[in-house]
Amino acid sequence: MLKRVLIANRGEIAVRIIRACHELGIEAIAVYSDVDADALHVQLADRAYLIGSADATQSYLNTEAIITAAKVSQADAIHPGYGFLSESADFAEKVTNAGLVFVGPRAETIQKVGNKDAAREAMKHAGLPMALGSDPIHDATDACRVAKEIGYPVILKPVAGGGGKSMFIANNAAELLSAVNKVDLTTTVFYLEKYIADARHIEVQIVADNYGHVIHLGERECSLQRRNQKILEEAPSSALSPEMRQKVGALAIRAAKSVHYTNVGTVEFLMDKNTGDFYFMEINPRIQVEHAITEMITGIDLVRKQLRIASGEPLNVKQEDVTFTGHAIECRINAEDPTQNFLPSPGQITYYYQPGGPKVRIDSGVCAGSIVQPYYDSLIAKVIVRGRTRGEAIKVMQCALSEFRIDGIKTIIDFHLDVLKDPYFCSGDIDTQFIYKRMIS
Amino acid sequence: MLKRVLIANRGEIAVRIIRACHELGIEAIAVYSDVDADALHVQLADRAYLIGSADATQSYLNTEAIITAAKVSQADAIHPGYGFLSESADFAEKVTNAGLVFVGPRAETIQKVGNKDAAREAMKHAGLPMALGSDPIHDATDACRVAKEIGYPVILKPVAGGGGKSMFIANNAAELLSAVNKVDLTTTVFYLEKYIADARHIEVQIVADNYGHVIHLGERECSLQRRNQKILEEAPSSALSPEMRQKVGALAIRAAKSVHYTNVGTVEFLMDKNTGDFYFMEINPRIQVEHAITEMITGIDLVRKQLRIASGEPLNVKQEDVTFTGHAIECRINAEDPTQNFLPSPGQITYYYQPGGPKVRIDSGVCAGSIVQPYYDSLIAKVIVRGRTRGEAIKVMQCALSEFRIDGIKTIIDFHLDVLKDPYFCSGDIDTQFIYKRMIS
Repeated sequence: MLKRVLIANRGEIAVRIIRACHELGIEAIAVYSDVDADALHVQLADRAYLIGSADATQSYLNTEAIITAAKVSQADAIHPGYGFLSESADFAEKVTNAGLVFVGPRAETIQKVGNKDAAREAMKHAGLPMALGSDPIHDATDACRVAKEIGYPVILKPVAGGGGKSMFIANNAAELLSAVNKVDLTTTVFYLEKYIADARHIEVQIVADNYGHVIHLGERECSLQRRNQKILEEAPSSALSPEMRQKVGALAIRAAKSVHYTNVGTVEFLMDKNTGDFYFMEINPRIQVEHAITEMITGIDLVRKQLRIASGEPLNVKQEDVTFTGHAIECRINAEDPTQNFLPSPGQITYYYQPGGPKVRIDSGVCAGSIVQPYYDSLIAKVIVRGRTRGEAIKVMQCALSEFRIDGIKTIIDFHLDVLKDPYFCSGDIDTQFIYKRMIS
Repeated sequence: MLKRVLIANRGEIAVRIIRACHELGIEAIAVYSDVDADALHVQLADRAYLIGSADATQSYLNTEAIITAAKVSQADAIHPGYGFLSESADFAEKVTNAGLVFVGPRAETIQKVGNKDAAREAMKHAGLPMALGSDPIHDATDACRVAKEIGYPVILKPVAGGGGKSMFIANNAAELLSAVNKVDLTTTVFYLEKYIADARHIEVQIVADNYGHVIHLGERECSLQRRNQKILEEAPSSALSPEMRQKVGALAIRAAKSVHYTNVGTVEFLMDKNTGDFYFMEINPRIQVEHAITEMITGIDLVRKQLRIASGEPLNVKQEDVTFTGHAIECRINAEDPTQNFLPSPGQITYYYQPGGPKVRIDSGVCAGSIVQPYYDSLIAKVIVRGRTRGEAIKVMQCALSEFRIDGIKTIIDFHLDVLKDPYFCSGDIDTQFIYKRMIS
């Protein structure tokens, strides 16, 4: 088992990893930028190293400083969390070359799944169902020709990168030309894909050890997104029958095996609401923000699993041992002002009271007195609840959010409360456009 | 279903009940003494009524004021929580006579199990195993004669009352005389019982509806006590085999049925460490502080069950549906100074940070800024954790307690941390004298 792990991240995921380390008897080393000196993850870690200034390129993306901190602290592994360097094959390789364990898949796997073009090819080859798509496009004319072949609506996506950034939906040639004008095709490679309009975002959690064993832990529904950023997730999806769950789970395992996947990861699909068909989207080679809802319904601790797998332990759970109990929902608490078009709301938290009780889990990166920085992601905490049914989980979430009090900054708590009482949401009639159709007009 | 419930309590149990009410769509009405105007339970309730001054006899024990508040607020029920009026048959009767639902057993059941003498008789009659005991004793001579018959060590107990108050263990006649001298046999009725020296405190959670259905939810081990007050509890007990669990569960159901028990309650047993024999102690006709560990391993919400049963719903869980998953531990966070003989430590909480994450549940009655009053019980919060095994639960508790930070008052968090690293505790070798034998010399 690993002895000392450096966590190359901040906020709630750093806190989450510190807790998992401590429970396994592993020392947890934090890193921080100068504005984060008093951050919660620094307080909870066993030791912490300053790695640079506020700008993430100088600190949390500063590969050299992070690896140096790991060496100075005599850590034997680096956990990248999500975001920042977690999807950098280059970082994973440098970590390994420095003689340290990278808590995640192998660099070549990250490389393969990170390049959307290569990933599409690999998955098509593995037999995964794909939305109609194109080779990289070169210019506006090329784009229009391909779109006409595929048929509108289409989505313009960068080949590299993830997290829903720089993606544009076009319903016709005019919208496509406008989208192409917003990006620089000379510096970034883009491709077109058939856009599934009435789609639900269904993703499957996979866990794979270093010895070829792969299991899935069921699906998460993450259809509630704003600007391709998830804000509320749930497990299981209200749209899947047991047969569909088994089907999409098997697809995810096939996808993982085809790239010799190791550690935990997520295979994302779009599901056509009308046909129930799944289309492969991408593989995220890291722990995800929404992993906690899977933990809640399976009882399996994913961050521990990451650390155990990275330590070389074989998987001790068989697919047939995985069971799903009840329903879990996660609401991301972002420091944003929903009344100002979700403008980030940095500042000091002057009062902080978080809910508790039997069905509520809080993963928070902040506490009273914390300063929410303008430099980083606005996610400050997650509220995760359980219920025996979806209806019960919704009610528990309403109660928990109503109790939550964060003074000094704006958050999207009230926005979530509005979502939770929407009749379409409550009936499970959601898709990736829900937030726009029902919440923001 | 009940529409509006008045909670005749304060602190963490009031908060717990408010949450359960809200999750069921029930309005929660708080009551408070003048010093509790800003207390957390007052903040979280839908409405709150001042019922008197700080001294509990003027407020939380003020039957008339509480029933008046319930009538003024048009509540349809009163939940007594634990402590205060929860074991008062008189209060239960007054509530019922006022046309309100008492969330608990019927007054005559409370009466019957509250009188230790009557309860012993009823349980002996029902065939429960009893420690050798006496009729009420009249004077010192009487006591010495009875003790000689039973054989030392003996325990001197008041017939009425519970919670371990005014109980004295005597290993010989001198100690017995000293104990008898400390009490007033003319005003309080006492009896003697054979004292099981190497005993573990094993209690069984029972749930009974108004239609004669009774189930048990397994046992809790509460051997870690100081002055007969539990401080750390766990479920399941490391001392019970499945056969013993079934046996003591059946005994608890028999006990409950013999008094036509309704709502939730606990049947307490002493288990002789050496023989594994159980001896009936008492029935607590209320929710208990340590109910959360049972919730954690069974997934059954006991406070919801109380409200549903009080609403007249039949039990929807059969004994064969009750399953136990993993291991749960609860540490009571008391505002006491362990270095000063557990002297209560009232005052204002100037900083409050509570742990979170996947395996931790916090039931707290306080938040930052709360004032811990000297007038009431020193329990301010409970940390409840889960693990797949007892060892894992211990580790998770260590991590959670290490994170917990409460400034401005003293707490027993560090004392718990000492317990959790004691080798006898870790090996499960505990009994009701553990705290004295291992922790306090």
